[in-house]
Amino acid sequence: MKVESFFSNHTKLALKNEPPGSWIADVPDHCIRLNSGYPESSLVPSAEVKEAAVYLLESEQDLPLQYLGSPSKDRLKRHIQARMEKRGIIVSEEELLITAGACQAIDLIAQVLVDKDTVVAVEAPTYMEAIEIFQNYTDRFITVPIDEEGLRTDLFEQILADRKSNGQPLPRFLYCIPTFQNPTGTTLTPKRRQHLLELAESYNFLIVEDDAYGELGFVNSPQTLKSMDQANRVIYVGSLSKIVAPGLRIGWVSGVKELIEALFWFKKDLEHSYAEATMATYLNKLNFEEHIIKLKESYQKKCDRLLAALETYMPESVSWFVPKGGYFVWVKVPGIDTGQLLSQALSKGVAFVPGQYFFLDKEEGKEYLRLSFSYADEREIVKGIQILGKVLEGKN
Amino acid sequence: MKVESFFSNHTKLALKNEPPGSWIADVPDHCIRLNSGYPESSLVPSAEVKEAAVYLLESEQDLPLQYLGSPSKDRLKRHIQARMEKRGIIVSEEELLITAGACQAIDLIAQVLVDKDTVVAVEAPTYMEAIEIFQNYTDRFITVPIDEEGLRTDLFEQILADRKSNGQPLPRFLYCIPTFQNPTGTTLTPKRRQHLLELAESYNFLIVEDDAYGELGFVNSPQTLKSMDQANRVIYVGSLSKIVAPGLRIGWVSGVKELIEALFWFKKDLEHSYAEATMATYLNKLNFEEHIIKLKESYQKKCDRLLAALETYMPESVSWFVPKGGYFVWVKVPGIDTGQLLSQALSKGVAFVPGQYFFLDKEEGKEYLRLSFSYADEREIVKGIQILGKVLEGKN
Repeated sequence: MKVESFFSNHTKLALKNEPPGSWIADVPDHCIRLNSGYPESSLVPSAEVKEAAVYLLESEQDLPLQYLGSPSKDRLKRHIQARMEKRGIIVSEEELLITAGACQAIDLIAQVLVDKDTVVAVEAPTYMEAIEIFQNYTDRFITVPIDEEGLRTDLFEQILADRKSNGQPLPRFLYCIPTFQNPTGTTLTPKRRQHLLELAESYNFLIVEDDAYGELGFVNSPQTLKSMDQANRVIYVGSLSKIVAPGLRIGWVSGVKELIEALFWFKKDLEHSYAEATMATYLNKLNFEEHIIKLKESYQKKCDRLLAALETYMPESVSWFVPKGGYFVWVKVPGIDTGQLLSQALSKGVAFVPGQYFFLDKEEGKEYLRLSFSYADEREIVKGIQILGKVLEGKN
Repeated sequence: MKVESFFSNHTKLALKNEPPGSWIADVPDHCIRLNSGYPESSLVPSAEVKEAAVYLLESEQDLPLQYLGSPSKDRLKRHIQARMEKRGIIVSEEELLITAGACQAIDLIAQVLVDKDTVVAVEAPTYMEAIEIFQNYTDRFITVPIDEEGLRTDLFEQILADRKSNGQPLPRFLYCIPTFQNPTGTTLTPKRRQHLLELAESYNFLIVEDDAYGELGFVNSPQTLKSMDQANRVIYVGSLSKIVAPGLRIGWVSGVKELIEALFWFKKDLEHSYAEATMATYLNKLNFEEHIIKLKESYQKKCDRLLAALETYMPESVSWFVPKGGYFVWVKVPGIDTGQLLSQALSKGVAFVPGQYFFLDKEEGKEYLRLSFSYADEREIVKGIQILGKVLEGKN
């Protein structure tokens, strides 16, 4: 008996793709991690989370360890509403669902919106976990290129118009990261944001706005799509992973009440009482505005270091986008297969993510790589780029 | 624009059912909670979890708060392998997936095995969350009655034989809780276990064995289906919710490697690093065998109290199953609609779960109710049954 013979049709379809996490390289301990899209150790409030855990379990005893009932947990929604207000969005409790990170939010959205023949539009490149999630539900995609000003809404409009005139199905939604995008670091301009909302209205699709990096603008953060959305077409996904800590798995999704109800139908792992209550207790004591200022200053400095090092150590032919916030710098290395480059870089002591993993069509990403300035410290960043420069010189 | 017009077909199907959690009554604070299927406060190790959190965050700092990398988290699999060994099952790491509670395990199994026309077999009655999960994916069910010896394998065989001879589709799997079942407290006899495994072989289906209560046998715990399974037809689901604490959301699923790989494909909320590392750190210091003995003694005493109180305070016509472990007693109240009874019981100060919620066909459960002896303390249990007895007398 083969267990595969019992698999559902969409599972058989999903298993045709690369295994999840296949982009995660085995990075030796001594390597400088310019691959890691997570916060620098010193910026993760482990001492404060410890204090929160102690306070929580002393004051509420078993409540946060039960299925229901921690008063602290209930406060988390209000903290999240406050975060959204900073991004220009006022939502009621009914328009908000707490999830296990942005990933669960994206997965629930896929479950509720995607049939096996549903067309999903994504940026090219985009967040690899999101690609993996959508590929579990459909194999029909529209990919829209990105330039320095973010998603090319002009090309998107052309694709939509062509499909409409050819009688091809239009996308049910566009998944995008308009602000400090992963992996390109680009930010959609206000003009394109407006254009995108108009396209959604004209071609009747929804927009999933992943705003995980939204608060991390070095100088300021642009207006969210959701706050500009008059027609309730935008589903907003947020996360505390990048601005507090990923390991507590706190994200959320916001949209109209009917959508939130449907998402709740599929959110079947019950409440993460302890993690949610711990996060809420930590946030109760935090001056979040000061905290964000500290993060922004730190990431801006690190980004500046990385950009300066690129200027100094990269061969002439290499180019990159200059981000205004977030975690990432997107680098073009003409004529080099970055997938092959990685093993050499690892052997010399630096890690990055090859561009191919951020594209549905792996061929498209071959000459690109993603550098993260979030995790490594300033000294490591400079050293890492220096090493990468040498590896690339050896190739020329 | 109505967001519902963008919903996937299976979402439209799922939304025809009752909303998830509609069985959760609004229980006033003063009520005795004989409804709650979770551990008594004094048995939840909140002080020890606090110590574990402190030790973990002091020794590993940010690691358990990042996406990856806590050495403690990796130890959790070994603790779970040890629990399974106690249940007679030896598994490798590749045959094991940690999930956010048993619920996520059941949901992942449904995602991987269920198409919209897949037939799923369940016990009648069964765990209401499992019903809710399966109803998100299919509306085709076979229900198999339960008596004091657990699932009626003779009736199940008859159903299967009839379907086969009528050319109707056979179930892809049976979901069951063979040991200290929720809600009936019954345990499948060894003979019926053997019969069930033979049926799986003859009619080519899988068995999902939910063993959440398996270690909580007052005297001993019967052999698991998984340990008797020669043909790899059993998928085993375990949980630490009932024997440590539900709020940390630690469950697991075990099966052949190919199945675990497919489940991993759909487990898209990443690792719950902090919760997993906290649990592992707590378990590192725990003498689990002593802990289980303490739990068993406590629950047995509470169960005895509840059974004695039923003998004393219930009207003649009321009957119940006597459990040998677990959390629940299943009570039959002939001629009474327990759904209607609940509001009266709540107004007098006691809560239970009406039987209807444990059946796909709500009519079947009308004369039943589930009592839990896990959460209330001994004094409350006796008081609660006394109140329930008075409420029932008033009905006669």
